[in-house]
Amino acid sequence: MPARLKTRFTEFFDIDCPVMLAPMDKVAGGALAAAVTRAGGLGLLGGGYGDADWIEQAHRDAGNERVGIGFITWSVLRTPELVDQALSHKPAALMVSFGDAEDIIAKAKAQDTPTIWQVHTVAQAEQAAKAGVDVIVVQGQEAGGHGMDRGLMALLPAARDATGPDQIILAAGGIADGRGLAGALMLGGDGIMMGTRFCASAEADDTDIAKAGLVKATGDGTVRSKVFDVARAVDWPWHFTGRVVRNAFADKWVGNIEDMKMRAAEAQEAYNASQPDDHSIRALIAGEAVDFISRIEPAGDIVARIVEEASDLLKRAPRYAE
Amino acid sequence: MPARLKTRFTEFFDIDCPVMLAPMDKVAGGALAAAVTRAGGLGLLGGGYGDADWIEQAHRDAGNERVGIGFITWSVLRTPELVDQALSHKPAALMVSFGDAEDIIAKAKAQDTPTIWQVHTVAQAEQAAKAGVDVIVVQGQEAGGHGMDRGLMALLPAARDATGPDQIILAAGGIADGRGLAGALMLGGDGIMMGTRFCASAEADDTDIAKAGLVKATGDGTVRSKVFDVARAVDWPWHFTGRVVRNAFADKWVGNIEDMKMRAAEAQEAYNASQPDDHSIRALIAGEAVDFISRIEPAGDIVARIVEEASDLLKRAPRYAE
Repeated sequence: MPARLKTRFTEFFDIDCPVMLAPMDKVAGGALAAAVTRAGGLGLLGGGYGDADWIEQAHRDAGNERVGIGFITWSVLRTPELVDQALSHKPAALMVSFGDAEDIIAKAKAQDTPTIWQVHTVAQAEQAAKAGVDVIVVQGQEAGGHGMDRGLMALLPAARDATGPDQIILAAGGIADGRGLAGALMLGGDGIMMGTRFCASAEADDTDIAKAGLVKATGDGTVRSKVFDVARAVDWPWHFTGRVVRNAFADKWVGNIEDMKMRAAEAQEAYNASQPDDHSIRALIAGEAVDFISRIEPAGDIVARIVEEASDLLKRAPRYAE
Repeated sequence: MPARLKTRFTEFFDIDCPVMLAPMDKVAGGALAAAVTRAGGLGLLGGGYGDADWIEQAHRDAGNERVGIGFITWSVLRTPELVDQALSHKPAALMVSFGDAEDIIAKAKAQDTPTIWQVHTVAQAEQAAKAGVDVIVVQGQEAGGHGMDRGLMALLPAARDATGPDQIILAAGGIADGRGLAGALMLGGDGIMMGTRFCASAEADDTDIAKAGLVKATGDGTVRSKVFDVARAVDWPWHFTGRVVRNAFADKWVGNIEDMKMRAAEAQEAYNASQPDDHSIRALIAGEAVDFISRIEPAGDIVARIVEEASDLLKRAPRYAE
């Protein structure tokens, strides 16, 4: 029998493994979300910026597995009908990240859909708890893609202190193995959410070139910046930065964002002229946990191994105190 | 009897607690270092940039307690006689941070002095291990004062993987309670080094105003930048940034460092004209772990409580897997 770990998170969702799939924009499709749920975790579809056709297709691809869905708050606030569409599928949970989500949370709660809010500061954790959210995801700056500056090591226990002993909290950012899961539990979390590790899975909706890039990349070689938001001309709120694998394009502009903003048209033209798989220019989104990724695997194997590793570490933990 | 935890670090130094005092420049004086050692940890004097008279006074203040000493590598490489002076005291360990320390490590090893090298990337961890250092401190960007960008959550296990199962590793950055210590052990560390928490201790050589500032500060309210190196006109290598409590002076220049460099004289004049305890302008060095500091305590009480908390967490860890 595969290893299980029991936490408030697994009890709340009645699942075996305290491991949730990050709803990575369109990369977390139906096949990947279903695979994580099938392995005993909780799969979330990457609703991202919001796309009605994609949402329907992803649910079809997930088949009969119980999956949730996540959105980028500031984006989906502009298209509230997509939240209604998502809720009509009776998702296992509705997750929101990046912005004031009180109204969305209230709507989901009114339909008895479990709610999840990802936060990046202690103040945001307090805001989410006040909204009565079921699960708070505390994401550290180690994470791939968008986030903020605080490191998970202190942010996680600080968010626990700020929201009280009964709040269900997942840790995210920099985690891709059982050490990270066991560490997250000691730091006050009830489980983990992983993105980068599942991006490097067989079921992820990404190119083979991108997945191979994750296997090759190192945590030292990633960088968090505004470069690729400026390059893609997306209107992300300025306080959210994005972690990617450092490349020639990033090297040109990182540390010189003010200059880049003034020459935005030039930078955007160069970016748009490149091939989508040319990661010397295009962003390859990755968190610092790429250090622990050495091959592409089925998502179910990833869940099973991480829970097994964490279980072993936790069982042997008392030896330090003997 | 106070709680103990047994790791490779405690066995190497034959001590009871896997807790080391960060050698904070002049703040970690003889009284503080002695107090940490007396409590079962390992106290290091804050040799910092290097000052012959201070080194002598700190050793006198430490009395007969066994303490080590730490230096800022790039600075003390300019005054190698201070390393000889430190080694003449037969320190419990010689620690170096921030720069290529192979020559200093070789000199200490030749005199049978245990060696410690603080690193900020996986590449630096490999460099330190290759130099044959006894203990590597892996410091995440959560830490107060100078450091780099990687978060501890992934950097610690990645440094473990890069240096092998036998390397003694301490975790640093964002840790100020037993959750951080227990988490660090799960992540592959053999103990912790703390700075900010011990800065807010009765024995730390800092002003009451600075200590009160740490009690009041929050992790959300800290920032890592180059601002205060430019303001103080110190020639820190550019890739090392410093975390401080965000203040009006930082707000003016953070995110605009290129501009600040061009107007350095103006910024330096404003900085130097301020009172040393005016933390609206002056840097109040603090890591994200200020979230866990609610009062000034004797250093020995801090060590005892953290080890007790960690011990409890580790003993109860197997419950997740049952």
